[in-house]
Amino acid sequence: MQRYFIEEPIQHGVIDLPGSVAHHLMTVLRAQPGDQVEIVLNDHQVYLATVVATKPARVKLVKPLHRNSELPFRVTVLCGLPKTKEKPKLIVQKATELGADRIAFFEATRSVSHWNPNRRAKKLARLQKIADGAAEQSHRNYQPQVVYYSDLHTALIANPADQRVVAWEESAKQGETSALHQVLTRLHLGQSLTAIFGPEGGLTNQEVKQMKNAGIIPIGLGPRILRTETAPLYFLAAVSYASELAINQR
Amino acid sequence: MQRYFIEEPIQHGVIDLPGSVAHHLMTVLRAQPGDQVEIVLNDHQVYLATVVATKPARVKLVKPLHRNSELPFRVTVLCGLPKTKEKPKLIVQKATELGADRIAFFEATRSVSHWNPNRRAKKLARLQKIADGAAEQSHRNYQPQVVYYSDLHTALIANPADQRVVAWEESAKQGETSALHQVLTRLHLGQSLTAIFGPEGGLTNQEVKQMKNAGIIPIGLGPRILRTETAPLYFLAAVSYASELAINQR
Repeated sequence: MQRYFIEEPIQHGVIDLPGSVAHHLMTVLRAQPGDQVEIVLNDHQVYLATVVATKPARVKLVKPLHRNSELPFRVTVLCGLPKTKEKPKLIVQKATELGADRIAFFEATRSVSHWNPNRRAKKLARLQKIADGAAEQSHRNYQPQVVYYSDLHTALIANPADQRVVAWEESAKQGETSALHQVLTRLHLGQSLTAIFGPEGGLTNQEVKQMKNAGIIPIGLGPRILRTETAPLYFLAAVSYASELAINQR
Repeated sequence: MQRYFIEEPIQHGVIDLPGSVAHHLMTVLRAQPGDQVEIVLNDHQVYLATVVATKPARVKLVKPLHRNSELPFRVTVLCGLPKTKEKPKLIVQKATELGADRIAFFEATRSVSHWNPNRRAKKLARLQKIADGAAEQSHRNYQPQVVYYSDLHTALIANPADQRVVAWEESAKQGETSALHQVLTRLHLGQSLTAIFGPEGGLTNQEVKQMKNAGIIPIGLGPRILRTETAPLYFLAAVSYASELAINQR
């Protein structure tokens, strides 16, 4: 069933849909009165709703559905800004599907791209729109927040967490295979987890040292070398598998 | 270090590099005599090699590196052909990075795209090239094989395995969370695992029934709805996490 996030006010259980949602539901999907949709309100609860009018587009809430598709941990992925325009889009879309709570980019030492300060708001808005759409498609309860930091130092200060890890190629090369698993075993329901990933070319030794000094744990993601956009997706899938599918083993 | 797969004959430990490798190493990377590269031969072993001449491009094997970056299971992903041209490319590139042994597409009931028989060879060759490049980049020992089947029946016959699973949305909706984990626990080193994924719109009940009758196990991939190209990547990351990182728990 189609799902929409709605921030509009509700009156007696009735919602006048905002323009973009009205267009998608009525014009693209050609909904008719009586058709059902899922609505996520500001409380992050999912409600079943029925179309009561198409012009103006209006739905009536039927009942809460008590559905939760959020990861048991609040996960932030903090990615060194990649080279191409396409990669941040791919990371945002896929990380949203895979349950990230927050998707952040920072200018790493080896980041080739830099976001011009006066174009940041526009770029972020575009990525946030991708996250919002992907959150609807993947039936999330939350739309992840997309954030940008001009440097690692600021990114680290702005993203404290119960556990913080950094995906480090050298860690994988040295045959490190259990740090991620150990971190996931230590985490409790509702706790926060921040994971940092390098851009193309990786993090510098200086950056990794800075993170180690801040108590951030280096983790390996297996013996194969993953591209900058693949590593956060591997990480999120691993978190989901460990915390949602292999739970009787935790 | 740069890695290349080489099928050319070796004489006294010396290899004349084929055109495309010679171009990449000598022209793109501007290698000089004495520079080192990794060479994977037909035996799937990785060797350290030194450039001995640039024109003609020639390297000399130094020693085997005894490196293995292959998953402990031989994993085939069998994907319902997606709608756009871009998605098979993305699946092939990422599934290669994530360790797939074989990446296959089949025309599912709900596949909107169909490959014209007289253009299949060309399309497959293009995807195989992506797999070959990604295998070098991710430092694999094997280049996965890219395959195409015009229907599910043929795909199933051509892909027997020690364990076969199908990612099924209904399975996830019904709250099934442990089938994948159980399958992975049952698998032994070197055994084969085939996983089937639907196209956009999913598999039909008839297709799932056909697979269940063939003993294929439905698995859920968590509570979020994953796009057709995201599901195989989630699956491969989960297999890697379970078999390469969380091994003391298996």
